[in-house]
Amino acid sequence: MAAWARAVRGVLLDISGVLYDSGGDGGGAPIAGSAEAVRRIKASGLKLQFCTNETQATREKFVKKLQGLGFDISVPEVTAPAPAACRILKERGLRPHLLVHNDLVPEFAELDKANPNCVVIGDAAENFTYANLNEAFRVLIGMEKPVLIALGRGRYYKETDGLKLDVGAYMKALEYACDVEAEVVGKPAKPFFESALAAMGVPPQQAIMIGDDIVNDVGGAQQCGMRAVQVRTGKYRPCDENHPHVKPDAYVNNLAEAVDILLQQL
Amino acid sequence: MAAWARAVRGVLLDISGVLYDSGGDGGGAPIAGSAEAVRRIKASGLKLQFCTNETQATREKFVKKLQGLGFDISVPEVTAPAPAACRILKERGLRPHLLVHNDLVPEFAELDKANPNCVVIGDAAENFTYANLNEAFRVLIGMEKPVLIALGRGRYYKETDGLKLDVGAYMKALEYACDVEAEVVGKPAKPFFESALAAMGVPPQQAIMIGDDIVNDVGGAQQCGMRAVQVRTGKYRPCDENHPHVKPDAYVNNLAEAVDILLQQL
Repeated sequence: MAAWARAVRGVLLDISGVLYDSGGDGGGAPIAGSAEAVRRIKASGLKLQFCTNETQATREKFVKKLQGLGFDISVPEVTAPAPAACRILKERGLRPHLLVHNDLVPEFAELDKANPNCVVIGDAAENFTYANLNEAFRVLIGMEKPVLIALGRGRYYKETDGLKLDVGAYMKALEYACDVEAEVVGKPAKPFFESALAAMGVPPQQAIMIGDDIVNDVGGAQQCGMRAVQVRTGKYRPCDENHPHVKPDAYVNNLAEAVDILLQQL
Repeated sequence: MAAWARAVRGVLLDISGVLYDSGGDGGGAPIAGSAEAVRRIKASGLKLQFCTNETQATREKFVKKLQGLGFDISVPEVTAPAPAACRILKERGLRPHLLVHNDLVPEFAELDKANPNCVVIGDAAENFTYANLNEAFRVLIGMEKPVLIALGRGRYYKETDGLKLDVGAYMKALEYACDVEAEVVGKPAKPFFESALAAMGVPPQQAIMIGDDIVNDVGGAQQCGMRAVQVRTGKYRPCDENHPHVKPDAYVNNLAEAVDILLQQL
C-alpha cells in the first residue's frame, strides 16, 4: 500500500463495518481508532467522502447517530442510495411501491406513490415480513414489464447481535419470482461511485476506497479505476482473502492502520 | 392431445391449481369437475399418482384435507418432497436445521436435528419471518461447505386470497447470501418424477403429467421423457403460452377437459 499511497488525493470510506458495527436496535459500537482516523484524514487536507449502502434511515438520522458515536461527519459528506434512487425515479416518472425500512420512507416524501409502476427495495430489516414480500411481489408480477430498483445488492452484514441478510438476498428472491433483473442503485454500481468521486472532485486514479465488503466496496471501486483496501473489521472473513474474482490492493487490520499508512506518504 | 393420448397408461396429477385452489387459511376450494375427473381416471383402469411439491403439511394431513374436499385420494398415492428429502438425509447422515411450515415438522421426526450440518427449506409460509431467515442463513454461513436442500424450486403459487411467493424465491435468497447452490428435491428434479413413475409402474413414454406450472410440472416432466399438459387453472397465466423454453404437449381448460380427451382414446 505504501508503494501507491502517495498518489492518493481523496478517500472514500464505507461506514458500517469500517467506522462502527451497527446494532440490531438501531444503535451500534464504534470500531476502535476509527473516529480519530476520520479526524486525521480531515486534518491532513485529503478529500473525504463517506460512501454507504445504508438504507435503514434517512441521511439526516444516520448522520446524527454517527455524530452521537463521536464521528466528525455531516449530511453533504455522505453518498447514499436513497437520494440517488429518488433522482432516477423523478427522471423516469416512476411511482414507487416501497419495501424499505420505516425510517427511510421520508427520503421518498416528494414522490407520487399512488398506482405504483415500480418496486423499490432497500434493507427493510424487520419490514421483510412474509406479508410485505408477498405484497411487493404482487405489485411486480402485475406489471406488464416489472421494474425493480434495489438500493444495493449486499449479501449480508454484521450487527452487534450477529450476521443479517442484506437487501441483495431479498432482491434475488423477487428477481427469481418475477423473472426480472433488478436495477441496482448504490455500491457496486459504477454511477454511484462516480457521484461520490464527483462530490470530492477527485478522479478515480487519485482515490482510494476503504471498506469491509470484498465485492461491493473493493470490487466495485476497482471497476471504476480506484485503488481499494479491505479492512479486517465488520463483515470481513478470512476466506475473503481467497475470493475467486476480487483482490484488494491491500489489506489492513482496521481503518486506523490504513490512515497511518496513507498519512506517512503525504 | 388426441393424437398421442392413446399411448397413455399412467397419469401424474399435480394437486394445487389442478384439483383445488389452496387457501391462505389452510383450506381451499375444489376446481369444478376435478373430483369427478379423479374418479373417472380411477374407474378407467389408468394408473394414477399424485405428484406434488406441497410442503405445508404432512402427507397424512394434506390427504385428509383433500378427502374433506371430496377427492378420492390416499397417502400411498402421493409423491411429495418431504419423505424424499428424509431418505436423502438419512443416506448421507445429515442433521437438518428446518425452515419449513410447522405442520411439516412431523415428517422429520425420526432425524437427529442437534448440531445441524445442513439446512432444509420448504414452503414455510408464515414461518418465512425475518428472524427465521436470518437464523437459517447463520447456520449455513457457519458451515465450511454449506449444504442447502430445497423442497421444490417454485417461484409462486395462487391461493384463494392471491399469489404467494413459493420456496424457490427464498431458496434463491439463501443461495445468493451464502454463494451456494441448493439441491432441489421435488419437481422439477428428475429423480422425483422417476420415483412417482416407479410408484405407478409405468415408463415415462406411457405417462402424462397434468399441471398448472409451466416450468416445474410441464418442463420437468418433459425432461424425463413424459408428455405434459398445462391446465388453464391455478397459477396459469396467458403469458405462460409464450414461455421461451417450455412448450406443453397440449393446453386444456381444466383437469376435467384433459380427462375427457384421455378417456375418449381408450
